[in-house]
Amino acid sequence: MTAQTNQRIDTKRLWDSLMDMARFGATAKGGVRRLTLSEVDRAGRNHFKANCEAAGLTVRVDAIGNMFARRPGRDPSRLPVLMGSHLDSQPSGGKFDGALGVIAGLEVMRTLNDLAITTEAPIELVNWTDEEGSRFGHSLMGSGVWAGVYTQEKAYALTDLEGVSVGAALDAIGYKGAEPARPFPADAYFELHIEQGPILERESKQIGIVTGAQAQVWFDVVVTGQDSHAGTTPPSARRDALVVAARIIDLVDHLMRARGEDGRGTVGQLTVLPNSRNVIPGEVRFSVEFRHPDGDMVTVQAGQFTERAMALAAASGAAIDIHELFRIPAQPFDLACVDLVRQAAARLGFSAREIVSGAGHDAVYVARHVPTAMIFTPCKDGLSHNEAESIEPGEAGAGCQVLFEAVLARANRTL
Amino acid sequence: MTAQTNQRIDTKRLWDSLMDMARFGATAKGGVRRLTLSEVDRAGRNHFKANCEAAGLTVRVDAIGNMFARRPGRDPSRLPVLMGSHLDSQPSGGKFDGALGVIAGLEVMRTLNDLAITTEAPIELVNWTDEEGSRFGHSLMGSGVWAGVYTQEKAYALTDLEGVSVGAALDAIGYKGAEPARPFPADAYFELHIEQGPILERESKQIGIVTGAQAQVWFDVVVTGQDSHAGTTPPSARRDALVVAARIIDLVDHLMRARGEDGRGTVGQLTVLPNSRNVIPGEVRFSVEFRHPDGDMVTVQAGQFTERAMALAAASGAAIDIHELFRIPAQPFDLACVDLVRQAAARLGFSAREIVSGAGHDAVYVARHVPTAMIFTPCKDGLSHNEAESIEPGEAGAGCQVLFEAVLARANRTL
Repeated sequence: MTAQTNQRIDTKRLWDSLMDMARFGATAKGGVRRLTLSEVDRAGRNHFKANCEAAGLTVRVDAIGNMFARRPGRDPSRLPVLMGSHLDSQPSGGKFDGALGVIAGLEVMRTLNDLAITTEAPIELVNWTDEEGSRFGHSLMGSGVWAGVYTQEKAYALTDLEGVSVGAALDAIGYKGAEPARPFPADAYFELHIEQGPILERESKQIGIVTGAQAQVWFDVVVTGQDSHAGTTPPSARRDALVVAARIIDLVDHLMRARGEDGRGTVGQLTVLPNSRNVIPGEVRFSVEFRHPDGDMVTVQAGQFTERAMALAAASGAAIDIHELFRIPAQPFDLACVDLVRQAAARLGFSAREIVSGAGHDAVYVARHVPTAMIFTPCKDGLSHNEAESIEPGEAGAGCQVLFEAVLARANRTL
Repeated sequence: MTAQTNQRIDTKRLWDSLMDMARFGATAKGGVRRLTLSEVDRAGRNHFKANCEAAGLTVRVDAIGNMFARRPGRDPSRLPVLMGSHLDSQPSGGKFDGALGVIAGLEVMRTLNDLAITTEAPIELVNWTDEEGSRFGHSLMGSGVWAGVYTQEKAYALTDLEGVSVGAALDAIGYKGAEPARPFPADAYFELHIEQGPILERESKQIGIVTGAQAQVWFDVVVTGQDSHAGTTPPSARRDALVVAARIIDLVDHLMRARGEDGRGTVGQLTVLPNSRNVIPGEVRFSVEFRHPDGDMVTVQAGQFTERAMALAAASGAAIDIHELFRIPAQPFDLACVDLVRQAAARLGFSAREIVSGAGHDAVYVARHVPTAMIFTPCKDGLSHNEAESIEPGEAGAGCQVLFEAVLARANRTL
């Protein structure tokens, strides 16, 4: 139960560095607004870069703005072990979503320096560009371009609400790097992130051993009935699009619960037309998504959903259009990397459980090219994408220590 | 079956006058945008006033802009018989909602002139101010102030989205009259209006004999759950405000249908917060209304709704606030006036049925002080509050002829 080593990260230094980073884009309510490729992001990146260089790391930037801070290893022939996350935030975001994984990586580097450890393999700390997608509408952009999910040209052409393109924004803040944004050979990738959900807190677990990411299917649905006067239209003449939508929302909830605790099914966005008190809604547009660790379950759910939603619409004389936006297969993480996380947590005596990531993370795209694992730590009330996002220093320290152990073990493994 | 008289209104003149009035605020799609107390409304009022004066009528304007165009009777001691409706329209309104009742009244006056009829009682044609409520947010404003439902001060202080008050708008268009806006003794009030519903068209009836207006109860509902990540929050941890709202929408529909064809229950307006695809909705705000010809039924429904909606919220761990905005009792119309409409339709050989008004009308407020009846005519597909609102000249002519007969009979009745 006692740690194998006394090689401990410095929780106070980690926390202070997290608070330092949170000054960039700090909001009055204690959150962070650090939109990708903004002036605030530039200042945060510069601060991060300066800290990396002060720790003796060499910083490269690729063509989509991803930053790689390298600590050399003893054996120049070995592939680097990557770790990291993202420094951009939601418009009303918190201090820890993304920043924890990057700043904890910095703390890992500093600890290696303090302990004068030379790892066999080099280690690289990554700050992925635009994980959130809040400004340009495309989440996981930096890791997506790097992994070849999107082309660089497509990403450069995306514009924000003011018409500024990603390409122009990269130039403006000086982070359009020379290195091509494409996968380079790497030995592993580890990402520490807050859970953004309630499971670890509810079960009093310190560490989530993330075994992979859920499969997802996303739909846009439009139900079309007939708008008419709420006072004059008798029941038999109504084609109320909102009543049909309501039954479909209930259906989504039922299909989710039929899959037990691993099921996810959500209608998050909904618009009513004409949205007037005394007019029966003629049209309702809404989003539907299902997620499950098992891709086959998502396929089954998508089929059940489409069939039953069409039947509900038909029963009310409404038309329905169900447009599948995309389907993401389940992404299992690398068994050996996951095992390093599991072993580290056990060795350190941290309470832990396996967990499947419900949110999208850069790690999911990186995992297409590099053996990958993630580490989750609890966040208060499962709250994220919110200025009230909150974690404890001890929770951050535990996650960082597991990251340290896993990265060190991987970088020093016998090939 | 043959008409008792050959005193016929001129359907072509009526239709031409309706099309004349529709030029004021005409939209590209064939509708009308004649917002109350706007410059367009001023022009339409001036046109109407000139036509009234050309027909020998004397026009008065009261302090809230209601216009009264009087044709004298033989007996100066008799109370006037009123008829009319409103000339303002919805922002994207049609040519007939309101205008039909006013212009048909003008046609009644012109026909009386053509036939050189002197009625026993005087007759007054009314254009009520701001029936629609679209600009200042308060429907039935002119008739409501007249009937004492709202104070004149309260109405004057209402402002539009640009901050222009009703008082200032009345001054600006020169229609703040000298006469106090309050009920004066009158013998009867008749209002011709398009049904704004599908019943007459569906049953191929030419005339709706309106026996009264429905009771109504309106609620604002707020369901509060907890917004959280759609991918990371397991079913057992969800407090999805939209799922609760969906079940309440279904409840409203069921409560409506339990009352048969006379039932009305509608959720017309709904807002989701934060309204993001991958966030479980934390708050949903929506309107609920029930209507029924029998006020007791509305009371029962309001109670059932409140109790069951609270239970649905509680079952999902959500909070609910149900705020009753107002309750309007059923307003039966005057039996003798309604009978004049019934007799006129029968005498003229028009197919007719009794009907309860599902919409609000100036007649509902006038009925609090003056014996009142309404006449409905069909409108295509029951469509109203829409630029595509459409009626046939023959339908307008039939309604106008019934209005003529009823007003004439009332004005000449033996006291």
